[in-house]
Amino acid sequence: MIEDKNPQRTPLSELGEFGLIEHLTNHIEIKQPSTIKGIGDDAAILDFEGKKTVVSTDLLVEGIHFDLSYVPLKHLGYKAVMVNLSDIYAMNAVASQITVSIAVSNRFPVEALEELYDGIKMAAKIYDVDIIGGDTTSSNRGLIISVTAIGYAEEDEIVYRDGAKEKDLLVVSGDLGGAYLGLQVLEREKEVYKVNPNTQPDLDKYSYVIERQLKPEARKDIQQLLKKLDVKPTSMIDISDGLSSEIIHLCKQSKVGINLYEDKIPLDPTIISTCEEFSLNSTTVALSGGEDYELLFTINQDDYPKIKANPNLTVIGHVLDEKSGMALVTRANERIELKAQGWNPMKG
Amino acid sequence: MIEDKNPQRTPLSELGEFGLIEHLTNHIEIKQPSTIKGIGDDAAILDFEGKKTVVSTDLLVEGIHFDLSYVPLKHLGYKAVMVNLSDIYAMNAVASQITVSIAVSNRFPVEALEELYDGIKMAAKIYDVDIIGGDTTSSNRGLIISVTAIGYAEEDEIVYRDGAKEKDLLVVSGDLGGAYLGLQVLEREKEVYKVNPNTQPDLDKYSYVIERQLKPEARKDIQQLLKKLDVKPTSMIDISDGLSSEIIHLCKQSKVGINLYEDKIPLDPTIISTCEEFSLNSTTVALSGGEDYELLFTINQDDYPKIKANPNLTVIGHVLDEKSGMALVTRANERIELKAQGWNPMKG
Repeated sequence: MIEDKNPQRTPLSELGEFGLIEHLTNHIEIKQPSTIKGIGDDAAILDFEGKKTVVSTDLLVEGIHFDLSYVPLKHLGYKAVMVNLSDIYAMNAVASQITVSIAVSNRFPVEALEELYDGIKMAAKIYDVDIIGGDTTSSNRGLIISVTAIGYAEEDEIVYRDGAKEKDLLVVSGDLGGAYLGLQVLEREKEVYKVNPNTQPDLDKYSYVIERQLKPEARKDIQQLLKKLDVKPTSMIDISDGLSSEIIHLCKQSKVGINLYEDKIPLDPTIISTCEEFSLNSTTVALSGGEDYELLFTINQDDYPKIKANPNLTVIGHVLDEKSGMALVTRANERIELKAQGWNPMKG
Repeated sequence: MIEDKNPQRTPLSELGEFGLIEHLTNHIEIKQPSTIKGIGDDAAILDFEGKKTVVSTDLLVEGIHFDLSYVPLKHLGYKAVMVNLSDIYAMNAVASQITVSIAVSNRFPVEALEELYDGIKMAAKIYDVDIIGGDTTSSNRGLIISVTAIGYAEEDEIVYRDGAKEKDLLVVSGDLGGAYLGLQVLEREKEVYKVNPNTQPDLDKYSYVIERQLKPEARKDIQQLLKKLDVKPTSMIDISDGLSSEIIHLCKQSKVGINLYEDKIPLDPTIISTCEEFSLNSTTVALSGGEDYELLFTINQDDYPKIKANPNLTVIGHVLDEKSGMALVTRANERIELKAQGWNPMKG
């Protein structure tokens, strides 16, 4: 589907392992003042000058987390970084460095890894993080990417998952469900392509949801926005697995209950129309879809005036005591228990 | 070969992804004062109180870096941690935390991952590092382990690869070649086992080299010893790829040459006898074998009296100017150019 017509193919063996790492990393610039030493020694050296260090790591496996038949390698590299930066921003911290390890089979030429690294470097540049280390190694099958993101924060800025308090408001950034729908569109096109490889798909009307899937953006801006608005969330998490399961994480760790209002869940118009086309319930998609990398957080009610006019933020629920449980309040005003994937009618 | 006769096999699906992470990590203790928050949020929080942060990462892939037909999972977990800690010690830093990401196919039962984690936890306990995060995910084939190690050091304690100076002495800890020979023994036994699975191999006389391969120890003690002896190396690297290629790294980055003396290379008696049995040249094995995870460093000649009586340390060479090149001086007093793998006669 997305393919270079005249690909140049340099076998990995031509560079060797040391040559490959050097080739992929030799133009990497160091810009963060906290990076004392990046790639090129046994380990990288960082200096956070009294601030707390924040660390998060993720592993992406071909065939499980991505399908190279429709994911361009450059986008994959970009997304692998986003997934990790999102975790740093969810601590209300500043992301400053990443390490990138890649295992790759011989079926990938050097040019493919260059593409992947182009995406990684682009993400690092846009999000202002330094690439400070990594490992490039062989795999007997497929592509594996492991990214560790590092950041910093003042102690009193850090937001954990366990700080939500009764009567707090539940807030989400952006809109939900797009990444999942983008995946549905791409999967459908893959099937169409299998039947007729000459089809030229017209994906224009799906460009929003496809971009949400292929090139998500971690919400660095929200962390900065909240600082500007002088709002410190009481708890925060990023939405990688779907709204429902993230709400459950926040509530369980904070030992609180919640009412999530179905009619408040922010949905882009494209999402509503695409859901209709695929005969999917848009609430289910938002609750269980995942991969939107929006931020979900709770704020004290007193902070509501500071955020209410902001188009990036939507209040979608409010925090209850633990006994009240975690529920979706439907448009029909029914209270339904939240489940990690989808939901079931509440007992009692 | 190494097999539990009555293995209990709980399928991974029984726990689910969240359940699995919780199951594997729920008894992990936090002991480092620098660990503010470990597993359980979007990211871990560390506080190095003004010290520099040191970060290193490695990826181990089944079939490339290890063969589960003779590597017990517990040893594998242990070794995956050692490989990374070794990089931190090679900066003359203290290792304090690790993150562990694992991708695993369904062919592994929960008990196999418990074994792997037992090895990881044992390594963390013995080396006094906290397990602060990670990711457990599916793989479509085999086992992949990604470890990131984090540590700290005062700025003036850190030792880079590029500080070796002319007339410095080249020093190595422990002895070399054992890990490679252990692998040869294990590979041979695997072939024997294929032909006759009822053979009970007698591996007693190879126990040293097998242990060097299966359960290497990162040289935390050397970093402590050097501190006690009041010796700060001018450059340092750990030996993961073989003495020869590590010397080349040090020399290239320090812009110096070297004479490495063949008769000084420390070899355990088991290594000499096993080399004879396998018709291998022990110098070649030490130069190219790799995986010994010893530390290789240079010191100022003035520090020689402080280290000369120490049984853990051997002076194996001395640093020359860059033009003199990098050479092995053989027992026959020939000067032969060092190559990353093995060596070739020197030109001119």
